Amino acid sequence: MEMTISVSKSGLKFSRIVQGMMRLNQWNFTKTELEEFVQKCINLGVTTFDHADIYGNHTCEAIFGNILKDNPSLRNKIQIVTKCGIMLKNEKFPRRVAHYNTRKEHILESVDQSLKNFNTNYIDLLLIHRPDPFMNPEEIAEAFYQLSKAGKVLYFGVSNFTIQQFKTLQSKMNLNLVTNQIEISPYNLEHFQNDNIYFLMEKNINPMAWSPLAGGKLFNINDDKGKRITNALKEVAKDFNTESLDTIVYAWLLNHPVGIIPISGSGKIQRLKNAVDALEIKMDPEQWYIIYEAALGQRVP
Amino acid sequence: MEMTISVSKSGLKFSRIVQGMMRLNQWNFTKTELEEFVQKCINLGVTTFDHADIYGNHTCEAIFGNILKDNPSLRNKIQIVTKCGIMLKNEKFPRRVAHYNTRKEHILESVDQSLKNFNTNYIDLLLIHRPDPFMNPEEIAEAFYQLSKAGKVLYFGVSNFTIQQFKTLQSKMNLNLVTNQIEISPYNLEHFQNDNIYFLMEKNINPMAWSPLAGGKLFNINDDKGKRITNALKEVAKDFNTESLDTIVYAWLLNHPVGIIPISGSGKIQRLKNAVDALEIKMDPEQWYIIYEAALGQRVP
Amino acid sequence: MEMTISVSKSGLKFSRIVQGMMRLNQWNFTKTELEEFVQKCINLGVTTFDHADIYGNHTCEAIFGNILKDNPSLRNKIQIVTKCGIMLKNEKFPRRVAHYNTRKEHILESVDQSLKNFNTNYIDLLLIHRPDPFMNPEEIAEAFYQLSKAGKVLYFGVSNFTIQQFKTLQSKMNLNLVTNQIEISPYNLEHFQNDNIYFLMEKNINPMAWSPLAGGKLFNINDDKGKRITNALKEVAKDFNTESLDTIVYAWLLNHPVGIIPISGSGKIQRLKNAVDALEIKMDPEQWYIIYEAALGQRVP
Repeated sequence: MEMTISVSKSGLKFSRIVQGMMRLNQWNFTKTELEEFVQKCINLGVTTFDHADIYGNHTCEAIFGNILKDNPSLRNKIQIVTKCGIMLKNEKFPRRVAHYNTRKEHILESVDQSLKNFNTNYIDLLLIHRPDPFMNPEEIAEAFYQLSKAGKVLYFGVSNFTIQQFKTLQSKMNLNLVTNQIEISPYNLEHFQNDNIYFLMEKNINPMAWSPLAGGKLFNINDDKGKRITNALKEVAKDFNTESLDTIVYAWLLNHPVGIIPISGSGKIQRLKNAVDALEIKMDPEQWYIIYEAALGQRVP
Repeated sequence: MEMTISVSKSGLKFSRIVQGMMRLNQWNFTKTELEEFVQKCINLGVTTFDHADIYGNHTCEAIFGNILKDNPSLRNKIQIVTKCGIMLKNEKFPRRVAHYNTRKEHILESVDQSLKNFNTNYIDLLLIHRPDPFMNPEEIAEAFYQLSKAGKVLYFGVSNFTIQQFKTLQSKMNLNLVTNQIEISPYNLEHFQNDNIYFLMEKNINPMAWSPLAGGKLFNINDDKGKRITNALKEVAKDFNTESLDTIVYAWLLNHPVGIIPISGSGKIQRLKNAVDALEIKMDPEQWYIIYEAALGQRVP
Repeated sequence: MEMTISVSKSGLKFSRIVQGMMRLNQWNFTKTELEEFVQKCINLGVTTFDHADIYGNHTCEAIFGNILKDNPSLRNKIQIVTKCGIMLKNEKFPRRVAHYNTRKEHILESVDQSLKNFNTNYIDLLLIHRPDPFMNPEEIAEAFYQLSKAGKVLYFGVSNFTIQQFKTLQSKMNLNLVTNQIEISPYNLEHFQNDNIYFLMEKNINPMAWSPLAGGKLFNINDDKGKRITNALKEVAKDFNTESLDTIVYAWLLNHPVGIIPISGSGKIQRLKNAVDALEIKMDPEQWYIIYEAALGQRVP
């Protein structure tokens, strides 16, 4: 399987595996360690980095941006994804209630802050983080249009949207939404069951998959579902002479015809390597279903 | 917020708040009292009256029509919405089973009866009251076409339809369905959860909201959900220096970008005034979510 | 009601009732008995026979084909429906896991085998038996195109697909999918509840109904639901002076405006006759709802 994937006919290319930066603040990297980590990602072919304004309680973007400041040549070797729309409530942000805000002015301000955090003048892909039941899709479309015209954001997408929510926002836009970042893993088949996967196939849109390992629940053999999936992964792993069960999970995702782009969220380069190794694996339907049915907990009818 | 809202590009205008007449027969108004009530509604800017053939066991239309007979100049100051399709079973209508009937001949007969009841020669908006699993959308479309051509009904819509049911009927029609009258209140978030709200946004269609106060359940503090919502309403009410919690509920509905048209079902003019007062309130996302999350019973993810 | 129904504008006609061959291997017919059975079906006007590659553990197609070999003139008097995509796991097929396979090469091979089994050079209608979560709709479309071009299959459809799965596959095809074969019976209202019925009405597509009698559960009076439905069927049967409750079930299906094509799965010609008798029955909404509400277990709102 190729290492890059075209996610828009207009030219956006991502690496087939994306490095997630949600826990960057917890990895306690020195600046040099982070530079080395990013370089190792690139060496593995992983050039796309997934962020959000809120990651690390609004700190991760700036930690990452700190190395871009001193390595300006890095910017055009990587693709930056970030998100907006969630309003946290905590000590740092003492709001009355955690909520979403997809008002035009908020989106514009959030992107300006992200650009500042990243020390860059453009975001490759901006996502609305969560579907906002109070959203005005026309306002979002307007914000996107302004950001595009100003060159601040090159492409737009959504995250965790239903089919209809996606259609509604798309219907108000001139540009095409290029992705829906959703949770997909053998542990979470929700987007097979709600038909999102089939919709994205219809529209030739690549989903980005967050939590492809379900935060480790996949491998928790103290949980019935985890145990069933682990056993299935082990069986399929044998076929490919590997003991890296996470490689098999990534292969299960990568082999799906919809063109899933998994996000690896670990700060350990070996875990990312395990994900990249999956690009070499070609799964047949039987192997894919061994894992799928273990996840379902029953055979297909 | 403006007092009128354009619900069709072809010209239909409704008042932003609609007066529901479902319980007109229970208000025990004399004819004079009803004339006064309707005049007070109009004075408040509420010119749209929501009926159905079956309200009051098929009596409410005629009670209302009784005042139109003697006040012919009233007709063009108001908009009449009515519905058809439900076949009651009771002492007056001793059928074998309560059911729906959306056959062409039934729709035509039902409208003729409504026109007679109202002492008018046109209905502003006719709704199919409930989605009929036995419906033939082509027959409904034919009935609508004939009624439109005869000038008996100016606009058409549905009530309680799913997205697909709406699309199916629309696909057989030349005219546009102008609304889906559905239950919406903080107590009933069903149409957020089934994506109807987002679909209506895509199509630029204003939902009419029945039971915006959930029949009082919103304020029932003996019920966990009612208690949570009441507390949230009280918190937001303070921001606007009001003690009318129902005003806050209406504001929550009116501020939603989909353009909800709430139906106030009370026969007390003060309750309608509380609804109209909500037009002055501009809610920010945080205020809207205080109520939404209280209704959900959890914070958004 | 007419005995034939046009299921495609391009010319495919089916009999209004279809004879299902899933249990052909269990009927223990001699070749002569099968010839007689098929002739009796044709005499009743039932010319469409529903098969699948897997029926009878991959034996039914060939049992049926055996009589076509010696009666070549029979072929153009009947329509053959068959299906592919399910990979059984059992003693005869000792796979690691039962699964689906909708890869292009599998579909092509499966059809070639079916043609051989049937001793024919064309299938009237080929269905994908189950929605395959691992499917590549473009590959299926390619397989369909090749089969069509080669004259091996005249029409294509699906079975048990959701609305979105149907749309996704259709979006990749040049030809129109002509049916979705789904379970419909008063005992199983699933496809009313998931809106499939309304979608098929929008698209003017006739669903084929499998298990119209719910495998007899309809008449099981030891089960609450079965008892309610049986009583309702008895009530409606009186209106039509019949004691064949199955005739009433078929009438309930045939009278629905979506144009349901029921599949009778019995090897007893009397049962098929009972189904065909239903073509004479015209049900009004009240009669239809007596059965529908008994099935629901509650009156409609």
